[in-house]
Amino acid sequence: MAITLYELAGADPDRRFSPFCWRIRLALEHKGLSFAGRPWRFTEKDAIAFADSGTVPVLVDGDRTIAESSVIAAYLEEAYPDRPTLFGGPAAQALTRFLVHWTDGVLHPALAPLLLRDIHAILAPQDRDYFRQSREARFGRALEAVCPDPDAQRTLLRRTLSPLRATLRLQPFLGGEGPLYADFVVMGAFLWARGVSAQALLEPDDPVEAWRLRMLARLGPESRALTSF
Amino acid sequence: MAITLYELAGADPDRRFSPFCWRIRLALEHKGLSFAGRPWRFTEKDAIAFADSGTVPVLVDGDRTIAESSVIAAYLEEAYPDRPTLFGGPAAQALTRFLVHWTDGVLHPALAPLLLRDIHAILAPQDRDYFRQSREARFGRALEAVCPDPDAQRTLLRRTLSPLRATLRLQPFLGGEGPLYADFVVMGAFLWARGVSAQALLEPDDPVEAWRLRMLARLGPESRALTSF
Repeated sequence: MAITLYELAGADPDRRFSPFCWRIRLALEHKGLSFAGRPWRFTEKDAIAFADSGTVPVLVDGDRTIAESSVIAAYLEEAYPDRPTLFGGPAAQALTRFLVHWTDGVLHPALAPLLLRDIHAILAPQDRDYFRQSREARFGRALEAVCPDPDAQRTLLRRTLSPLRATLRLQPFLGGEGPLYADFVVMGAFLWARGVSAQALLEPDDPVEAWRLRMLARLGPESRALTSF
Repeated sequence: MAITLYELAGADPDRRFSPFCWRIRLALEHKGLSFAGRPWRFTEKDAIAFADSGTVPVLVDGDRTIAESSVIAAYLEEAYPDRPTLFGGPAAQALTRFLVHWTDGVLHPALAPLLLRDIHAILAPQDRDYFRQSREARFGRALEAVCPDPDAQRTLLRRTLSPLRATLRLQPFLGGEGPLYADFVVMGAFLWARGVSAQALLEPDDPVEAWRLRMLARLGPESRALTSF
């Protein structure tokens, strides 16, 4: 069966920058499932209305349509049990939820202010007003005013990463000897950043940076192309 | 074989308040292993010198001596594989390390300022100078000045708990349907608080509070006695 992944893209369709879509791209590669990534823009709501969703990722697998990254990941694990596991068992799947919420609720908010202006700059023209209005409403200020001190924000980001850093001093991946969905969730944040900006977020000697490079080195050929600018 | 757990205690030997010792007490109960908890005070360094450790928990299991909570938990899982699992497999054991570091590096620092004066008050007299000096050096100020605004600190604590809260909205325990070592690690923080202070840290309608009460209800008889003041 053919698998299609609807992925958020910029003006350049090869700029895939949604952290939530990256989770699923990495999960599909981990399971060794071939798929077609289909670029989608914020304002193309009609194109994914069939999935009862206003956001991506949306996955179409034959006659199944699934939206929302955590739901898609659970679906892939259940639908493809003979492929490499995304979680490593029910206990790990339960614990992964904490990692997801830490990423969504702690890591992303620490990172987003550093990226907003860069995201706006790479968007398709028809997406720019939508993005500005929705994000300015969320942050309560103009995009240009969300991050008045990028150096301080990067310092906060690096401090936010402390539990990840301490863990990666003990083992090469969150999942242990190899990456699992928890790694893909956190890596999604760094691929979000990479997709919109060339800025260095981490110090070269940070164990998180070494892990990020290990994760980049494992990307499949198409994902590698999508991260090379 | 007899198992002995050296546990930090206050002037009252039944005041067991180390979050790291509670992790192991809960782990031993989870595995259904009978053990004797032996109260220990901060300044009784000689009493655990045999373990090459200056801190508790120290576990003695027959002719084995193990120090440091994470090492002890890994030992128990390996030594008692036929008992209920603490982790739920290698992937979950790897992910648990993130939870441990989040607890040690994020949750404990948010909680400690609220507890320091109460800890000092319940210590054995011979421990008080040691505690004051070591903690004042760590926090860079007098014990009485570490938490000038407890309400603001409780607000920070509750915000810090957001990834835990979001996870516990989805499932009864961090480990899923039942508690695992990750739950014991986080619960250690709340038993630390309970051991020294009657203050309410959480709102009654907080999913974290509901989880804390579920965890309390599962304590074994002796642990229940040790948390009843």
